[in-house]
Amino acid sequence: MKKPLLFSAFVMNTASHILHGLWRDEEGHQKDFNDVNLWVSLAQRLEEGGFDIMFFADVVGLYGDYRGDWKFHVESGLQIPSNDPLVLLSALAVNTKRIGLAFTAAPLQEPPFNFARRVSTLDHISNGRIGWNIVTSALENAFHNFGHEGLTKHDERYEWAEEYVDVLYKLWEGSWDEGALVQSRETGVHADPNKVHKINHVGKRYKVEGPHLVSPSPQRTPVLFQAGSSTAGKSFSSRNAEAVFIIAPTPDIARTVIEETRALAVQNGRDAKDIRFYQGLHFVVGKTVEEAKRKAAELDEKIDYHMMIAHSAGGLGIDFGHADLDTPIEDIETEGTKSILEWLKQSITGRKPVVGDFAELRSRSARIVGTPEMIADQLELWREAGVDGINVINATLPGSYDEFIDDILPILRERGLAKELEAVDGTLRSTLFGTDQLNERHPAAKYRGAFAETKVEQHFSG
Amino acid sequence: MKKPLLFSAFVMNTASHILHGLWRDEEGHQKDFNDVNLWVSLAQRLEEGGFDIMFFADVVGLYGDYRGDWKFHVESGLQIPSNDPLVLLSALAVNTKRIGLAFTAAPLQEPPFNFARRVSTLDHISNGRIGWNIVTSALENAFHNFGHEGLTKHDERYEWAEEYVDVLYKLWEGSWDEGALVQSRETGVHADPNKVHKINHVGKRYKVEGPHLVSPSPQRTPVLFQAGSSTAGKSFSSRNAEAVFIIAPTPDIARTVIEETRALAVQNGRDAKDIRFYQGLHFVVGKTVEEAKRKAAELDEKIDYHMMIAHSAGGLGIDFGHADLDTPIEDIETEGTKSILEWLKQSITGRKPVVGDFAELRSRSARIVGTPEMIADQLELWREAGVDGINVINATLPGSYDEFIDDILPILRERGLAKELEAVDGTLRSTLFGTDQLNERHPAAKYRGAFAETKVEQHFSG
Repeated sequence: MKKPLLFSAFVMNTASHILHGLWRDEEGHQKDFNDVNLWVSLAQRLEEGGFDIMFFADVVGLYGDYRGDWKFHVESGLQIPSNDPLVLLSALAVNTKRIGLAFTAAPLQEPPFNFARRVSTLDHISNGRIGWNIVTSALENAFHNFGHEGLTKHDERYEWAEEYVDVLYKLWEGSWDEGALVQSRETGVHADPNKVHKINHVGKRYKVEGPHLVSPSPQRTPVLFQAGSSTAGKSFSSRNAEAVFIIAPTPDIARTVIEETRALAVQNGRDAKDIRFYQGLHFVVGKTVEEAKRKAAELDEKIDYHMMIAHSAGGLGIDFGHADLDTPIEDIETEGTKSILEWLKQSITGRKPVVGDFAELRSRSARIVGTPEMIADQLELWREAGVDGINVINATLPGSYDEFIDDILPILRERGLAKELEAVDGTLRSTLFGTDQLNERHPAAKYRGAFAETKVEQHFSG
Repeated sequence: MKKPLLFSAFVMNTASHILHGLWRDEEGHQKDFNDVNLWVSLAQRLEEGGFDIMFFADVVGLYGDYRGDWKFHVESGLQIPSNDPLVLLSALAVNTKRIGLAFTAAPLQEPPFNFARRVSTLDHISNGRIGWNIVTSALENAFHNFGHEGLTKHDERYEWAEEYVDVLYKLWEGSWDEGALVQSRETGVHADPNKVHKINHVGKRYKVEGPHLVSPSPQRTPVLFQAGSSTAGKSFSSRNAEAVFIIAPTPDIARTVIEETRALAVQNGRDAKDIRFYQGLHFVVGKTVEEAKRKAAELDEKIDYHMMIAHSAGGLGIDFGHADLDTPIEDIETEGTKSILEWLKQSITGRKPVVGDFAELRSRSARIVGTPEMIADQLELWREAGVDGINVINATLPGSYDEFIDDILPILRERGLAKELEAVDGTLRSTLFGTDQLNERHPAAKYRGAFAETKVEQHFSG
């Protein structure tokens, strides 16, 4: 039998994440995102329902302007306000037992020493259920929130991320040897000083002495997620990621991305199967095709196309705000629309793509509409393409996940596309790979024992 | 009737916080600090028992060397390993309803934009029960963990802290006006863009554009704690703190510190009563004096004097590790022992103070030994001196707090020294001051509405 898919719920601690404008829907509760109870009950529901991961996206700044400024973002609720996901995970961890808890953070946000300590603390609190999605923020406002004059260049952001994770690996894998924490009441030895080491990292951006202040957590390094699809992004993933989020338009395109990244991983001394791939999809399910199509049409009515455009184009620094929805994109004199046009021309032929097409295709690109059986058929194709899991996008909270759990997962179980419901406690890494800690092929593993020779007396010098 | 005292539990997410070596005690559970259940059950016990605050100390580096290096610290468990308190508070918040949750953090650790967002997120999660103890780390290793060549000078650290809180005040108080969050399903207005503002902070160390990403939490600014006793520290407190932790050797000395700081507060345009003072004390209680004295003697047996010295002197950068306990401190050729000698000479006359005196006095300096009635008598004196609350130091977890709740608090209630047990929900600031938000005399208040004139179009420029 083929391997069942893994399931992640793709959420954000804000009112409007991907399918925009749905916070206005009477059936949705995402506008209550400031209330921790929304998230606690959703986490519990996902866990009981058989999801493996609850995954929080995040940004630390505004998207690029729309209609010349950011007024629209605030008025419509386009990922502002938003709350910090790392802090929330601790509350979710103590109210769940098994579900993996993943969050997004960028090197920009916090010095690696502090980040390492907070993540290790979370990994202790959750008994090893933490995943970290490594991003390099691409929003200019985010850089302005952290003292930078402007956006750091794309490839340089990845270099920065490489040094950042390098420091983290040293702290998580190299600073405390196995068996260092003794806690013997009899002898009074709390930890073995010969097994705890400073890391003395000196690099381009960071100098970090150590030792790590937290004793090894169940996973040490959290499960490492990544979502970059650029050349630099794939290169980074192939070295560092254990799971990659993609939103490919078709299974065939997914297959290409997956095979490319796996091949790069092998070049980097890892196994092809050392990386799991999650495809982002959202589902409109009905008892009949007609019902599903009707629900999809209703959903389309509710989606705010201007928010879709402000989010997608604003993320690329393009302001489509002054154009009507029927303006041909070619006619807009804006830098950087080339990639958008290319993407649209995959679907639209025989006429010039207009701004409204962009919004419409963005909102439908990762959508599967149909009966549970039809959805299962589609998921077979994604699994055939090499996808290991599905990152389930929501239209409403908790409604989209209730439907997925109640209407879709039972059929997926019958078809071997989803695991049987069973209460297996364990770390997030054990869910994905069957082991608690990073394998020896991962670059972090080289720091195990690497600082053992460093004498405890050795001091840091500039 | 006089005002009842407030009660805070003074803890740290580590095995050995103040009274060192007690993690070895069979009755103590603090060596289980990596297990979140220890903290959840303690928080619930404290809340039920009538404590107002659970307060987490923290450091982000090693204390200064002992016997030439930091081997001793690791071996004895001297605040290493330790976990991050901010992350833990979220887990405690969702398992409690009323108790205030305070933690320690230094500007060194995290850029203010990220810190502001995390604290606001926590304040939402806890329904306004967060307090922040502002420290300027004094440990060289901490600075080395964050890329600095060495310790930033004392007064400069306070200048740094002033700019740090200034950025935070702008984000917490000035970025979102009252009533900005609308969330109208009918009109589709999520927030009023005319009530959300960038802060455009440009200062010596920080440049922060904004807007704050989190909508106003119940308290906006968390309750601000401080513990500095230096001139710069008192000056900082008098401007910024709402509560000050002191560990004065006698009520009279407490009175002096309190009056000085209150007078400075008035000079800074605040009211004398805008600051609450918490005296740190630990209690050894017995049904009879004899029992209490016997328990105190037993406690003395269990305290690790070398850890007491390594902590106290190491915090000042002094290594007493090679001296025997009976070595006169005057005979040790070390810089910086002057303040220690002065402190010891307040208690020791007629002979030269030795290293062991230092350890002994440190471990007993804030201790009250006696029957509940005798303890109540002592607390009357502290209250008379102007103390508003007691920060209760523990010998064992949860034992010390169980004793305080079961044996001491009932007598304090009878004597009007503690509030009656009543389940009153509300923010931490309402517990201390009867209001949810900072009063208009606090320096943060000047940022309310201060950025309203900033046009939304205005962009940040270097």
